[in-house]
Parts: sequence; structure tokens; C-alpha cells
Amino acid sequence: MLVVMNKQATPEEIDAVLAAIEGKGYAARPIPGGERVAIGVLHNKGAVDASHFLGLSGVQDVIPVTRPYKLVSREFQPEDTIVQVGDVLIGGGNLTLIAGPCAVESEAQCLKIAQIVQRAGAHLFRGGAFKPRTSPYSFHGLGEEGLKILALVRETTGMPVITEALDTDTFGLVEEYTDVIQIGARNMQNFSLLRRAGRSHKPVFVKRGLAATIDEWLMAAEYVMEGGNTQVILCERGVRTFAHHSRNTLDLSAVPVVCKESHLPVIVDPSHAAGRRDQVIPLSRASVAVGAHGLMVEVHHNPEEALSDGAQSLYPEQFETLCREIQAIFDVFHPPHPVQ
Amino acid sequence: MLVVMNKQATPEEIDAVLAAIEGKGYAARPIPGGERVAIGVLHNKGAVDASHFLGLSGVQDVIPVTRPYKLVSREFQPEDTIVQVGDVLIGGGNLTLIAGPCAVESEAQCLKIAQIVQRAGAHLFRGGAFKPRTSPYSFHGLGEEGLKILALVRETTGMPVITEALDTDTFGLVEEYTDVIQIGARNMQNFSLLRRAGRSHKPVFVKRGLAATIDEWLMAAEYVMEGGNTQVILCERGVRTFAHHSRNTLDLSAVPVVCKESHLPVIVDPSHAAGRRDQVIPLSRASVAVGAHGLMVEVHHNPEEALSDGAQSLYPEQFETLCREIQAIFDVFHPPHPVQ
Amino acid sequence: MLVVMNKQATPEEIDAVLAAIEGKGYAARPIPGGERVAIGVLHNKGAVDASHFLGLSGVQDVIPVTRPYKLVSREFQPEDTIVQVGDVLIGGGNLTLIAGPCAVESEAQCLKIAQIVQRAGAHLFRGGAFKPRTSPYSFHGLGEEGLKILALVRETTGMPVITEALDTDTFGLVEEYTDVIQIGARNMQNFSLLRRAGRSHKPVFVKRGLAATIDEWLMAAEYVMEGGNTQVILCERGVRTFAHHSRNTLDLSAVPVVCKESHLPVIVDPSHAAGRRDQVIPLSRASVAVGAHGLMVEVHHNPEEALSDGAQSLYPEQFETLCREIQAIFDVFHPPHPVQ
Amino acid sequence: MLVVMNKQATPEEIDAVLAAIEGKGYAARPIPGGERVAIGVLHNKGAVDASHFLGLSGVQDVIPVTRPYKLVSREFQPEDTIVQVGDVLIGGGNLTLIAGPCAVESEAQCLKIAQIVQRAGAHLFRGGAFKPRTSPYSFHGLGEEGLKILALVRETTGMPVITEALDTDTFGLVEEYTDVIQIGARNMQNFSLLRRAGRSHKPVFVKRGLAATIDEWLMAAEYVMEGGNTQVILCERGVRTFAHHSRNTLDLSAVPVVCKESHLPVIVDPSHAAGRRDQVIPLSRASVAVGAHGLMVEVHHNPEEALSDGAQSLYPEQFETLCREIQAIFDVFHPPHPVQ
Repeated sequence: MLVVMNKQATPEEIDAVLAAIEGKGYAARPIPGGERVAIGVLHNKGAVDASHFLGLSGVQDVIPVTRPYKLVSREFQPEDTIVQVGDVLIGGGNLTLIAGPCAVESEAQCLKIAQIVQRAGAHLFRGGAFKPRTSPYSFHGLGEEGLKILALVRETTGMPVITEALDTDTFGLVEEYTDVIQIGARNMQNFSLLRRAGRSHKPVFVKRGLAATIDEWLMAAEYVMEGGNTQVILCERGVRTFAHHSRNTLDLSAVPVVCKESHLPVIVDPSHAAGRRDQVIPLSRASVAVGAHGLMVEVHHNPEEALSDGAQSLYPEQFETLCREIQAIFDVFHPPHPVQ
Repeated sequence: MLVVMNKQATPEEIDAVLAAIEGKGYAARPIPGGERVAIGVLHNKGAVDASHFLGLSGVQDVIPVTRPYKLVSREFQPEDTIVQVGDVLIGGGNLTLIAGPCAVESEAQCLKIAQIVQRAGAHLFRGGAFKPRTSPYSFHGLGEEGLKILALVRETTGMPVITEALDTDTFGLVEEYTDVIQIGARNMQNFSLLRRAGRSHKPVFVKRGLAATIDEWLMAAEYVMEGGNTQVILCERGVRTFAHHSRNTLDLSAVPVVCKESHLPVIVDPSHAAGRRDQVIPLSRASVAVGAHGLMVEVHHNPEEALSDGAQSLYPEQFETLCREIQAIFDVFHPPHPVQ
Repeated sequence: MLVVMNKQATPEEIDAVLAAIEGKGYAARPIPGGERVAIGVLHNKGAVDASHFLGLSGVQDVIPVTRPYKLVSREFQPEDTIVQVGDVLIGGGNLTLIAGPCAVESEAQCLKIAQIVQRAGAHLFRGGAFKPRTSPYSFHGLGEEGLKILALVRETTGMPVITEALDTDTFGLVEEYTDVIQIGARNMQNFSLLRRAGRSHKPVFVKRGLAATIDEWLMAAEYVMEGGNTQVILCERGVRTFAHHSRNTLDLSAVPVVCKESHLPVIVDPSHAAGRRDQVIPLSRASVAVGAHGLMVEVHHNPEEALSDGAQSLYPEQFETLCREIQAIFDVFHPPHPVQ
Repeated sequence: MLVVMNKQATPEEIDAVLAAIEGKGYAARPIPGGERVAIGVLHNKGAVDASHFLGLSGVQDVIPVTRPYKLVSREFQPEDTIVQVGDVLIGGGNLTLIAGPCAVESEAQCLKIAQIVQRAGAHLFRGGAFKPRTSPYSFHGLGEEGLKILALVRETTGMPVITEALDTDTFGLVEEYTDVIQIGARNMQNFSLLRRAGRSHKPVFVKRGLAATIDEWLMAAEYVMEGGNTQVILCERGVRTFAHHSRNTLDLSAVPVVCKESHLPVIVDPSHAAGRRDQVIPLSRASVAVGAHGLMVEVHHNPEEALSDGAQSLYPEQFETLCREIQAIFDVFHPPHPVQ
């Protein structure tokens, strides 16, 4: 950390800052510049809380230098984490496709869609049993009945399944039925839920919050890893900006940045980012092209009748096109025998 | 809701949309314009899910008309809700001041600060016992020991206390000790927590999420009210924007908008919005001037030693100045005998 | 346009709104709903100014329906515009690559880089002669001397050149030397400059402003087309959001949206969006994958010595990789004989 | 500036960075930390371009320390700038009110409104003669005829007038007629216009751009001051965020930050920020309470008939209320004999 003093800071103010730094158990190293003094804070283990120094007299700014995350960082583990779910590998040189309806609606619906997406090339089946909804009056999912349908899909097709755990109360139930546990965007800083996920023996899929910086997102993953669960997958799904031509703004530059900072796999969800079917295929191609380790896409055999988010669900034939195109794009910059 | 068709939409496409609307149980009313057809959706109870129609062929846009919230709306209850906590009134023509440290650190610290803020004019005491922190390695509060300290503050000073409930697991514990239960910004869409708060018999203080629209914020309050708890207080605490000269951008226009849309009281928290002490006093004045029903402000007798967010905590004498100034500002546009 | 009344709006208020609409020369069509009345505004030519009605008593909201743009819209011209510059085609089924240094620094620098990018596959050469800079103390480009160097590059290599015109005073000079005239992001709503570009006989390259909606961006292009110049190219270069891991957030969903709304070609500039070299190649792949008609990329043979934006300029060998990869990606979803 | 190296950076990489810094004529001072090396860049005059070092091998981040602006900074001039226009003082301990219609529509309209606002307490009269409009098809103002009407208002009422200059072509004309020259938000980085304003002998009113950081805004003022014109007034008018309940989000925290960083006066324009009349009065009160040196407010005697932005114009009696309230609020924290 670097504490930057005002140009007019007095020697007394500088001394008080030095004392404050040392009072916290760090070493202080003044760096006199042409116009002002800056003070380096050394010997800190991990990040220093800027607020200790920001309010001191004569201090103009406090600039963090050390990254706040540890276990998730590539500095901690240089090689890619590869999460294995059944026979499916996520991360490293693999391209993984997760597909299914927004919400689990019925056995027939799920089996039908599972068959469609598996044939087209999907590796995991998705479907919400517990749905977070902005309104208390909306459809909130089938709950445990939905989880049973997901288990049936796995039995029938052999595809592992992923579904969201909304709270610590139902986490155990979700954990029992599903293969991968999703933490939704709205819960990305629900730290109790993250700690519970850290105690799980199943892989955890951490969606980026609507207004989360990359540091905050990685710190959410750090909570899970800190609890002992190393099987963490990250998912970019759009952030909230002034732009309203898509539901959220898919932030694809986050993918190479996270891949550089962290060893964890990164999946992109273009369906929730776009909110409209006609943007999902182009954004899927772009997500793979930017270097994501896979996609999570909503597909419905009859979107007009879907109980939630029908407008963003692909038709089956669109999903087939998507599978073909993204595999070809992936192959462009991945050698046949990945040696990442 | 209004479904807007493309200029080139065919009669068949229009008919299909009409059928889809009626298939959902609504009435459809076509409005042929000069250049294109729009279709009104009538007889809906509450908001209609746009996604049903957004993906249909020939549809250009779907425009919501009805507000999604009910119980929180001023259309539902025209007169102001006034929340009573002990002898303190929040809402209507009252100006309420909530003050205290960011985190409960010790008995001595809390009693000291409580005495300071009470003497200056504060009505409620705040202090975090369970602290949400971006990092798993940071100080997370004293937990139940902190709650006991808050209860002691109430006993000693007579001031009601407010503190945050982080999850459903500890909600009952917090509810037992505190007078008002805070739902933090990061948990604004933690729907399980909101439902739990809806079953509480204590007032609930709902902070606006970092990227929450006013509709989403009011819908969070709607969750609480839908559960039967009508004692809800809203709190604006800044939103995340590109601007980085303050920690968040305090959105003061939200105050008159919420006061127009809803009957619930609105408090502003300038400390978390600013993140820096020198912005807190001016933003406090502005918050009262814009029409907020009160403030929540962090005060510490020794900010340099605070365990969290010391940089944004006011010194005691600053808080006294603030109390004087905001009362005078409030009086400018409130007659001595409020008749709101 | 749709004027939505409050639930409590009186018949008198509704009548006053009807009268106001008709007073502006439009037709008013009331649409009584279950809970409130909405009023359609018909017979308007082009967009109606919402502000006429927004402030009337009893009005809750005013919702625009008609798109504000005309000449740039696909409703006006269904087939793609293809801009021809020398032998280079931009738009339709073509993939066009624009490359070169941020700023023109010298004859030797430009000829060197031009040779490199041409050999790798670039179609147009870029380089700033007049540079917009946040600081009055920064390097502002070589001016006319830079334009002469660009002309020399064209003579020597046969590649057409593109450079920015900063103001109406120097527009004529830029127009004289260059093949395509760039309007920069900061000038996207410099309407005098756009009108001047509308009178030019050379193609105009309109960069999206940092906080421009798609409507505003298309309206900027509408200014140029309204002046009689139909040779307009759009360029997405990132928008400003809370995210700071890249200089701006590249908004790739804008590409399919613009391609749906407008017939104009869309180029993406990943260099300015990213601001850091290591994000440029992945974002370039993503831009082509999302459906852009081409890229504008900064390349420098010696980025460490560049006079501006060296950190985002690709090394020559990186640019070669990029050219290979994006062509292969483009081919994935474009048949060998484009029949768009 | 501080160059932060990767944890794994090699001694060779560090040496290369040191050499690069010295190659630019600066001094390099390595600061070895517990985990990584940072390198201070010293002996720079003004800001160093981060891009020189950001792309070097082994560099993780580059952190600016020095503020980029000079002449506008309070470090350069500690005491407040007070701009005098006729008898009106702007800045320091003065509260200045600028009011009038959005656009100059006619002699009768302007004289009528001028009389109203002057009687209520306005000091300057505003009105657009050249109007920047998103659409080429909208009303763009009366041009020189509008300027003549403004001059007539000054003659008749004695109030100085302010109006916008849109481009360098018409700048001289505007300068001839008006007392203060406004640079609009869209033109905040129109550097040619800023340079022209820097050569003017009249005060310049620089509106903050929709997505401008405070640094960029102050740098725009720096352009004007660098040209020799020290009479600069800043105007906050809202920034673009995800929030859409007001047209823009008024960023009131910018006021204390700018007052701390710069000696220039800061005016707030709540009318353009809000876009809706019912938010203007509360935001006006808040703007004065936060410490602004004044307001610019739109008033119209007949907003329903206004040619532009009628929905945000106050009725005359609202403006009177506003004047009373803001003066009383201002007095709360300003002693009767200002000694700022």
C-alpha cells in the first residue's frame, strides 16, 4: 500500500502517518518525490485496510498494491484448475457446454429438453428448482420436486446436472440431488451461503454479481476456497450499465483478465446477459472466442410456453447451430491436443 | 403492457401475438398507428412478464406500464407510514438521526460513542455485530457478544438500537436483541432473508443494493410487507457508477422519487456512500435538504483506531456540527407543526 | 408514444392531456385499462418530444414507441450498406482490417508499420495526425505533417488511410489527404462536426461515445446521412462503466443490435476499449465472432517508444496471429461466397 | 507514479523497467516489498503517461500519484476564484442563481420569464440560442436572433446573460452578445472549442460531461485556463448511470470534491439532471446544502408550450419557493459576513 501525502503536508503530519503505520505493525518507507511525499507500507501480510490511513491529516490518497485474494490467484497456483464432474472436465483446454431450461417445469419438459441439448453436444444439464425472483408474486420454482426431476434427467441421460442453491436452509437439499451447485448473481456476496458452499464436497459455480468488480468476484470464490472446497467455477453473466439494448452488458474483457489473475475456470452465460434470444448466438460465439472455458445457455423446446425467461431461451435448432459454430471457433485457437 | 410490432409485421404475425396474449388469459387491444401496430395488454392483475411476448415473430419491443409493486406503493396507501421504535418516530414529518460506530468493538467503545451521539441529538444507536466483509480474512464482528453490548447501550442510554442481520441462521438472535433489523445492501435481493424479515415483529431497515433500480428496491420491501410486516424503512446508501472520487455515488434523486411512489420512510446513509469523512457532512446536509426522513451516520471517538471503516467515521465535534446544521435545514421547508 | 396516467387521474386531467396532444397536431387515442388509462399518440411524423406531456397533471409516464432515427434504419433501407474505399469493401459479407499506430510519429515509423500490417493482412492504415488529449500538455499529433505522411503511406503501399478530424477548422485539410474521416468518441455529439461530415464526399467513421446509447450513436450517424453523405461506418470502442480492469467495457452486444436496427457497417476497436495489449487479441477474436464487419487495431513495431498509447499497441507478431485467427473465426459462420 | 511488478518478476525484468523509466528522463526508485517490488517514478514534471510502462514484461500495474491538472488546482491557488459578471459575484461566499427558459423562443417569452425570475431573486438570465440536439430534425434554436433577444433582456432588466456556444464558427458571435459563455456537457472534451474559450475575455461556464470523471472535467477547465482565461465556472449537471428514474444521476459528492481540489466556483444544474419538474426543487435544495456556489435552473411561464424541455421547467411560483428555501439553507452554514 502507498499513502500519498498532500503537497502541503507538514513534517509533523508525515511523522504522524509514519507512526500510525508502525502502530499497526507494518513498516513505513517514505518516498520523497519532486512535489510531494509518498509512504510505502511494507511487511503487511495480505491487503492493508485503506481506511486506517485515508482520514489522517495531510493524507491525499491511499493506493492499494497487493491483491486481496490468495487461494484463487494464479500467483498461488500457476496451473489451471480443472474441475471434474462425472466424466466432464471444466477448465484447462476443455470447452464445456451447459444447457437446459431456465426453470424446471415438469418431468416431460426436462426430459425432452435434455434429449435435445445432449444430442446437440451439451455436457451438463441446467434447470432452476429454486428461482430467485424480483417479485414475491412470481413463480419461484418447483423446489424439491424440481430437484427430483433433475436427478431423473441425470439417471436417464447420464448428464450431470447443475442447479442453484438460494439459501443455507435448502443448501443441503440441493447438494444432495445436484452435481454442481450454483451461487446466483444476487447471492455473490451472501457470505453465509459462500461459507456453506466452502464446506460442500461438490463443485460450486459462482456467478458474478451485477455490479461486482473482478476483485469482489474473486473474493467470493476465495470465501469458498478458504472453507476447503477447491472445486470452484466462475461465471460471467453481464453487469449493469447505462446501456439498455440488452438486459445487462456482457463484460467479455473479464474473461482474459480472470484467466490471467486466477487458475479457476470461467464460463459465460450469454442468456441472462442478453435477455433476448437474438443476441444469444452471437454472444455465445464471442464468449468462446474471447477464451471462456465454456457456456451456460438456456434452451427450451417451446419458449413461448416457458414459465420464466422464455424470451431468452434458444429454440432447439438454434442451439444446434450454436454448438457447431462454437466448437469450430474454439478449434481455431486451440491445438487438437491441448497443451495449456 | 404494450407490445410494439415491427413496421413490417404481417397480419399473421399480429394475429399470433393477439392469440398469445389471449392464451395467457389477458385481453388484447390492437392500436394501429401511422407506421406500425401496437397491442395493449389488458385485464392483467399486476405486472405481466414481458418475456412471454418479447421473442415472438414480428415483435419489436414490449413496454411495461403497470408498476410491479403493490403494498409499498402510495397508490395502495396514500398516507405516509410512520414507524415507531420506542419513543422514536421514523417517517412522516419527523427527522430521525441514527448514529454510532461502523462495528461494535467493545463495551467501552459503544458506551462512549453512544453518550456522544445522544448528547448531540441522535435518536437511534447503530453498530455492526455481524459484519459483511468482502474478504474472508477481515474482521467479521463480535457476533452475539456485540449484540449484548448493543442491548447494554439501550439499557444505559434509553436509545433504541439498530444492527444488521446477515443470514436466516442468526436472524432470530439479532431479532432478540435489537430494535430495528437492518438488511444490508449486499443482501437486498437475498429473498430468503427478506421473507424471514417479513415474519418478524420488529421494524426492518432495507438498504438499497449497489446496482438496484428503484423498482427492485421497492420490490425488496414488498417481500417484507408481503410477509405481513408493515414496519419497513428504506435506506439509500449510494450506487455503483463509473465515478470513483467517492466510494459510491449517492443518488439523492431517489429520495423524492421513492417518496412519490411509496409511503415508506427513506433514510440516507452518507457515510457508506462517501467512504471519506470530508464528504459526509456536506452529503448529510444535502440528504436532509432533498427530503429524506433522516440519516444514518458513522461516528467514532477515535476513528484512527476503528476496526473497520475508520476513514468515513465522523469525529464527535463534526457530528455535533452536523446535527445543528441538518435540523436547521429541515426546519426551512417543514412548518413547525408538520402537516404532511 | 404512449402517455400513461396515474391510477387516480381525474376525467378532467385526462381531457386536458387529450387536448394537449391534439393541440400539438397529433391524434389521441385513450386506452382504458383495468387500473388506469393510457393514451396513444398517433399521426406523428417521427418521434414525439416526451417533455410536452411529462409534466402535465395526472401523467405518470410517457413511453416512446417510434424509433427516432430514419435514414440509418433498416426499416428505411433493408439491405446492408457497403462502403467502398479504393478497392476495399466495408460492410455486407466482408471482413475489413484497419491497423496502424495510435499516432503518426514519423515517416519511417509509419512506413515500417504499414509494411508490417499490410503483409499480415490489413486493408486500411490508421494513424492519428490530430490527437484529442485529455491534457493540454500532452502530445497532440503532427498535424498537417502527419497527414502528408499518411498520404505517403497510401502512395507507397496502395492502402487507403483513415485519420481523425478533430474540428470543423481542420476538417477540410483532413478530408483532402485521407480516404476515410474518423469522428472520435469525444466528438460523437459535436453536431457541427457531424454536419460538416455530412457535406463531405468521403466516407465517415463514427465512433460511439463513451456514454452513448445506441439510439444516440445512430442519431449521430443520422446527422451525417441527413447532410447527404450515405457512406457512414460505425465503430464500437467500449463504454464507461464501474469496471476498471479494462480502460472501457467493450459492449459487444451492441454489434448484433446495431446490425438489426441499421444497414450500416459496424467495426470494433478493441485497442481503445482494452487499453492493455494482453486483452486486445481475445477481444479481437470476440468482436469478429459476434458479427462485426471488421476491426480497427493499434500496432507498433516498438510500442515501448510510442508517443501515445503504447501499452495497447500490438507487437507485429501478435498482429499476425490475430489476422490468422480472426479470418478463421469469420469463416466459421460465413459461407465462402457471402450471400448476406 | 508507481510501477508495480508481478510477484514472479525476474531481476532482468525489473532492470528493464528501471532502464525504461530512466530512458524517459525520470528517476527510478525501487521499493522492495515483502512479496513484490514496486518502483517509484520521480523527477517527473506533471503526470507521467502510464502507457509507457504498462505493457512492459513483468509489470502488473501502473499507479498514478500526481494529479494531472495544475492551474485549476487548489495546490496552485489556495484561495477561491471569484468570477465577477457585471455586479454579480460567482464563487467564494456568494450564492448565485441563474434562471431562465431552456431555449430562447421569442422576445415576449424571454422578457416575461426574465421579469419573473429577477423578481424572485435570480442574478443571471439563461436561455439557449444555439441548442445541441440529439436529432437533426429537432428545433435547434433561433441562432443570432436569439442572441439579440438575450441582449435585449440584459438591457431591459440589467441582468447579465449566459448562453451556450456550440462551435468555434459561432463562438465569436456568442461572445459578442453574452456575458458568460457556456460549454455544454457534450462539448466538454471538444478541445478546439475549449482552446477558443481560453482566448476569450469573457467568463466560461464548463458543464461536466455525461461520463466525465472529475479529473477529466478539471482538465477541460485546465484547457481554458492554459489559454489565459482565468474566469472559469464549473457546472455539475448529472452523470449517466444505470438508474433511470431521473434523466441523469446528479452527483452531488462531486461538489465537495471539486471544492477541495480546485479554487474554481461550482454551480449545479438540477433541471437537466432530473429531466422532471418534481425533482428539481428537492435537488436544488440539496445542491445548495452540499456546498455549491449556486444553481442554474430552468423556468418557464408556460412549460406546456415550451419548444424544448418543458417537462423540467419550473412554474414561476415554484421558482419563488425555491429561491426562498435555498437562501435559508445557504444561511444555515454560512455566517452573515462570509469569511471563506
